[in-house]
Amino acid sequence: MPLLVMKFGGTSVADLARIENAARKVRREVERGYDVIVIVSAMSGKTNELVGWVEQTSHLYDAREYDAVVASGENVTAGLMALRLQEMDVPARSWQGWQVPINTTSAHSAARFVSIPRDNIDRKFAEGMKVAVVAGFQGISHEGRVTTLGRGGSDTTAVAFAAAFGAERCDIYTDVDGIYTTDPRITDKARKLDRIAFEEMLELASLGAKVLQTRSVELAMRYKVRLRVLSSFEDTDETSGTLVCDEDEIMESKVVSGVAYSRDEAKLTLVTVEDRPGVASAIFGPLAEAGVNVDMIVQNISEKDIGGGPKDVTDMTFSCPVNQVARAKKALEDARDEGHISYADLVVDTEVAKVSVVGIGMRSHAGVAARMFSALAHENVNIKVIGTSEIKISVLIDRKYMELAVQALHDTFELEKA
Amino acid sequence: MPLLVMKFGGTSVADLARIENAARKVRREVERGYDVIVIVSAMSGKTNELVGWVEQTSHLYDAREYDAVVASGENVTAGLMALRLQEMDVPARSWQGWQVPINTTSAHSAARFVSIPRDNIDRKFAEGMKVAVVAGFQGISHEGRVTTLGRGGSDTTAVAFAAAFGAERCDIYTDVDGIYTTDPRITDKARKLDRIAFEEMLELASLGAKVLQTRSVELAMRYKVRLRVLSSFEDTDETSGTLVCDEDEIMESKVVSGVAYSRDEAKLTLVTVEDRPGVASAIFGPLAEAGVNVDMIVQNISEKDIGGGPKDVTDMTFSCPVNQVARAKKALEDARDEGHISYADLVVDTEVAKVSVVGIGMRSHAGVAARMFSALAHENVNIKVIGTSEIKISVLIDRKYMELAVQALHDTFELEKA
Repeated sequence: MPLLVMKFGGTSVADLARIENAARKVRREVERGYDVIVIVSAMSGKTNELVGWVEQTSHLYDAREYDAVVASGENVTAGLMALRLQEMDVPARSWQGWQVPINTTSAHSAARFVSIPRDNIDRKFAEGMKVAVVAGFQGISHEGRVTTLGRGGSDTTAVAFAAAFGAERCDIYTDVDGIYTTDPRITDKARKLDRIAFEEMLELASLGAKVLQTRSVELAMRYKVRLRVLSSFEDTDETSGTLVCDEDEIMESKVVSGVAYSRDEAKLTLVTVEDRPGVASAIFGPLAEAGVNVDMIVQNISEKDIGGGPKDVTDMTFSCPVNQVARAKKALEDARDEGHISYADLVVDTEVAKVSVVGIGMRSHAGVAARMFSALAHENVNIKVIGTSEIKISVLIDRKYMELAVQALHDTFELEKA
Repeated sequence: MPLLVMKFGGTSVADLARIENAARKVRREVERGYDVIVIVSAMSGKTNELVGWVEQTSHLYDAREYDAVVASGENVTAGLMALRLQEMDVPARSWQGWQVPINTTSAHSAARFVSIPRDNIDRKFAEGMKVAVVAGFQGISHEGRVTTLGRGGSDTTAVAFAAAFGAERCDIYTDVDGIYTTDPRITDKARKLDRIAFEEMLELASLGAKVLQTRSVELAMRYKVRLRVLSSFEDTDETSGTLVCDEDEIMESKVVSGVAYSRDEAKLTLVTVEDRPGVASAIFGPLAEAGVNVDMIVQNISEKDIGGGPKDVTDMTFSCPVNQVARAKKALEDARDEGHISYADLVVDTEVAKVSVVGIGMRSHAGVAARMFSALAHENVNIKVIGTSEIKISVLIDRKYMELAVQALHDTFELEKA
């Protein structure tokens, strides 16, 4: 029997009417001949309520107890979904993490999958069950305690089940109808993509397109699980939404697939640092320890190399989320006070944004960067920092030009055209 | 290490402040040198919310899914209580039913205990844990599904743990400060009892004193678990509340310990039924099948026996809760239509109440019934039906005299005096 995994997030199961709506989508797939594993989140708002209670009870809480409390939200949805399916004459039962069992590491609140044995669920499918409704976001440690996977863990649960059970596809039902070439709030020319490659989705996910968690896309890519993102709130069929898949499945890929942005970036420049081996490590080591998520890094050419100055000094520029600036400054000042690094000045610009173009076609097409820079220059947008990977080009610009830049790049690469 | 079981009901853990208050009471016992097993209910209102969701989702719901959903409320409280205790530097952890494991039958929503192995919890006590916080009201079936014990199941869980772990005492913290000689709303002479025997408590519980579930008292009596009922909302010490214990522990028992009542009773009389072997079975069999809780039964002397009438006929009177009258009438009419019984008339009186005096001292004291009837006669209260057991005497009277009767009996047996 072919098998589908269907995942419904918190807004898709926010109340009994929405659970019924989701159950109808499950029944439709059963009627098409699939066995289905449904992964559910907690009803929207419930997890926040539980987290609030834990945080009010204890500041430095025991993560094992946090997990035991917080995982209960998914158990409620799983039972209600199974009941709703039964009411529609679909043989279904709920599964809590420990019942499957979903074996994870003991890293509470950030657990990782160890194994998902198929035996228990397969036996029930063999006995006539058509739908296994599994509580997402949770598992069990080898000590027998309840674990959670961290926020977004239900997406990851869905992908892991799709991999373990060899599902034909993993459908992620959410409150948007797919992945867009860019944020439709910024340009109404934004177009829904029919397909997108795993690598592109990864760049978009980590760049701020909040539809899918990075970790679930990584897992899907590793196990070649075809992911489909589609809307819970629309009538959908087999062609709805966006398929995230291996690039082999994408016939006619464009050079650029999408334009992503991240609004709340900061640029920090260390002025006049020594240009010697080990200095980068001396700077970015303390930042990593302080939990600063450094994104782009640019090192100026040293004065010595251009024959100008008397000393081997350079400037070092990096970006991080704007809410981590205070932490970054403290880490750098501490490192200077302890004599590990030296710098003349630390210049902080908290009014920047990052705009990126992403596409697997870039690998085989030259000139993408030039087209990008030309488009920005045409709009008089000054580029402060440039960073590149194999399939993306990112720039830091003044935040006030962000929307303008996204619109200009969307036009330049003709993303409104299919 | 001596061990205590402490149980906190829904109103005692209704919010984070009350959980903290309960945790302080637990810490005090730890400071006194006890290991403690805490049994918690769901935060008050939560179970009703979950039950409501299940009932709105499915009319003839799968009890296994009902249990999986409804049991989640206790898991939340257990985790929060463990966190609060840790915050007070008391080594504590939460236990869900399947983690202990609390093995039960598969009778979902009305499961009964099969076994509570001590190994897992004992091992943690040996490692330094001082408090095991156990989610009440739930267990696990041998199929690995979550079960619940039915309403009031947390009291039963507490008693079962006290029995399994040989606890010195099982303290039931609730929203009243003990067991009273009668309902204080009916007479301000009602007095809190220091001690009451299991048998007396059983009669009081089943007669409508809603403090303890009958089943938990039965279990306590069987395993000789000393139960103490006391208030969550007052400062309490070792002499607070009421101890429910074996009668051997009660030095100076009075003849009557309490006056109980049940307001919403109905009296039904079948007029002119045959007086032959098997007729009682033909009447009460169908009533039992229809789920009618028949309480008192009185059969008149047959006309034949007093030499008066030509036929062997009698009248049969019984009582049941007033909200079961329609069901009772239908069951009796169906039985008559099918020819199993015959009667001339069915007379229903829905305006009656039951008043009972209870006391283990009755066993060895004659004249209690006479004193009771005399007190009622003195107030011109007519007795409609009389029923007795070894340690109680109950009467059905007009409902409008109920409060008067309770007050008169409380005075007659001098229950205000210690």
